[in-house]
Amino acid sequence: MSEFKILGLSGSLRRGSHNSAALRAAAELAPEGVRVTIFEGLRDIPPYDDDLRTGSGYPSSVEAFRQAVREADAVLIATPEYNYSIPGVLKNAIDWASRPPEQPFDNKPIGIMGASQGLLGTARAQYDLRKMCVFLNAYPLNKPEVFIAQSGGKVDAAGRLTDEATRGFIAQLVVALRDWALRIKG
Amino acid sequence: MSEFKILGLSGSLRRGSHNSAALRAAAELAPEGVRVTIFEGLRDIPPYDDDLRTGSGYPSSVEAFRQAVREADAVLIATPEYNYSIPGVLKNAIDWASRPPEQPFDNKPIGIMGASQGLLGTARAQYDLRKMCVFLNAYPLNKPEVFIAQSGGKVDAAGRLTDEATRGFIAQLVVALRDWALRIKG
Amino acid sequence: MSEFKILGLSGSLRRGSHNSAALRAAAELAPEGVRVTIFEGLRDIPPYDDDLRTGSGYPSSVEAFRQAVREADAVLIATPEYNYSIPGVLKNAIDWASRPPEQPFDNKPIGIMGASQGLLGTARAQYDLRKMCVFLNAYPLNKPEVFIAQSGGKVDAAGRLTDEATRGFIAQLVVALRDWALRIKG
Amino acid sequence: MSEFKILGLSGSLRRGSHNSAALRAAAELAPEGVRVTIFEGLRDIPPYDDDLRTGSGYPSSVEAFRQAVREADAVLIATPEYNYSIPGVLKNAIDWASRPPEQPFDNKPIGIMGASQGLLGTARAQYDLRKMCVFLNAYPLNKPEVFIAQSGGKVDAAGRLTDEATRGFIAQLVVALRDWALRIKG
Repeated sequence: MSEFKILGLSGSLRRGSHNSAALRAAAELAPEGVRVTIFEGLRDIPPYDDDLRTGSGYPSSVEAFRQAVREADAVLIATPEYNYSIPGVLKNAIDWASRPPEQPFDNKPIGIMGASQGLLGTARAQYDLRKMCVFLNAYPLNKPEVFIAQSGGKVDAAGRLTDEATRGFIAQLVVALRDWALRIKG
Repeated sequence: MSEFKILGLSGSLRRGSHNSAALRAAAELAPEGVRVTIFEGLRDIPPYDDDLRTGSGYPSSVEAFRQAVREADAVLIATPEYNYSIPGVLKNAIDWASRPPEQPFDNKPIGIMGASQGLLGTARAQYDLRKMCVFLNAYPLNKPEVFIAQSGGKVDAAGRLTDEATRGFIAQLVVALRDWALRIKG
Repeated sequence: MSEFKILGLSGSLRRGSHNSAALRAAAELAPEGVRVTIFEGLRDIPPYDDDLRTGSGYPSSVEAFRQAVREADAVLIATPEYNYSIPGVLKNAIDWASRPPEQPFDNKPIGIMGASQGLLGTARAQYDLRKMCVFLNAYPLNKPEVFIAQSGGKVDAAGRLTDEATRGFIAQLVVALRDWALRIKG
Repeated sequence: MSEFKILGLSGSLRRGSHNSAALRAAAELAPEGVRVTIFEGLRDIPPYDDDLRTGSGYPSSVEAFRQAVREADAVLIATPEYNYSIPGVLKNAIDWASRPPEQPFDNKPIGIMGASQGLLGTARAQYDLRKMCVFLNAYPLNKPEVFIAQSGGKVDAAGRLTDEATRGFIAQLVVALRDWALRIKG
């Protein structure tokens, strides 16, 4: 049986990002047979401009993103919450991904989590992301919803997410995402 | 009495954008004493990265955006709808604008409109934008809501929004935005 | 092979409701092997009060609703849009349904449509309903999204939804809901 | 100078409701010149049915609600979160209030708070309520947003909200609501 491939996307570009830390935890905690690979190229994706696409085609950084989504069995998104929604950086990548000829998020199982300093753990951003999935015809997992609140106390100076309860939720999320993907594969 | 200054933001970078056409119509239709200036620099704003801000400070393109918002009496946003929300390009600019030391959208009156090919006229994106305004402590106008549906038939080849009914709604929006700004100025 | 049972819920109590008309159309258009049964008892469900539940237990009207959802293979909701969300009447029924000991919407496939006089066809209400489904652990179908705009011209005096294009979308929705239910049954 | 009248609405009918407790705290904490009166009649409002309105007119329980909103200088809503949105009971009352000939929420300043056992303090419900205000042309206050998380530890057996920090936020909310109302009165 082949490996189950999860593409990890962090909505933050910051080196010390708690969302990136949560994704690294997901990679560590993935069970046998599941591999979480973190996409590192969001920074290189230019501002979406459809004149660019219809003129010279997808930039290589965008094509790399589209290909990474295409090849994944599922996508796990760790989103910060900026201005009560997902970061523009993450949204811009999704905007590029959603365009023709084929749309790589189509039918893709999606797992969602997020870390913030406040009590809401990016909840406001996560429901916007779920609404986007309707357009994309992607299938977000319902449960567990992972809201990493007060994340400042849960990540150490080296950028490791150390809070055991949170690690437990993330481990559950990875397993549930794989199971959901297998369930809807039909 | 000094001129009332509205900053126009289009969420699309496309040359033929119907949202940019709607903003140009707003500029033409503004009454005596009101000037709509369209911000042209969204394309130059880099992906938001807080390490950049805390390291070398705001990039000049970002500082220009923050300054333009700061100086405006109101902001008029014309947003496309991508993936059922506002474009990443627009969100990214807002993400940069929302950071310390001062936050230029604080207390700012906001007008919202949007153009799309479908029947919904960017409604799904507009409510996300309104939610962002709660965080920003900006004050979006309630009415009129301007949903420019089936915009393909309303803009000519030269990029002029020609539909008379739509021009009427936009003219009302500009006046209502000025009146709302004066009302909440206190 | 047993019949596939869809429970139809209309969010409107009005005799001439276009949403109820859309559900009746769904019942007529259901393919061989699929039966749509419209739940008629929403009117009898009292205002949700948890003191009532913990005191004397579920009222019989509520238990009838919970049982109808429990027995259905999928639920098809036709929602009006009031105040940019789903009707209180429909929400109140969902509030009763979501309480212990078991929760009948858990794992239930959901189809969504809606009719309104305006151009938006209840879109604003439909995304709120989708968000509720995350809590309920119900699984709304992504596509087709059925927004019945300007419904006044699509329903005749006898309350029959006559618009052929709309009937086609509803027929597709019923089939897609059955297929989605079978797909996620696992 | 006349008294500033705030109408308090609790979305819960439960005797021990923490949201009702929060409203009683608001009434106690209101400054000189501000009176918070809690509307007690939501339980009596029947399921919204427009045939009823167009037939025999508004039921007396509904007319009492409409009149109470009409006479208030501002409305303060304490909403539970059920199924990630506001209760059907509260929504049903708003649905009745939003109908012709005049609409009592028009131009009304609105304050929002909510209490829940979880960490999110009804945030998901509050943004739905804000969206409804766009339709109603009501003006919700932006700040402070009052999310009363883990409310079980903040209300005593007698139903008094005792948590001092929360009482402080509620006191700020009442003052800010009055100030916002005066500001937009123009």
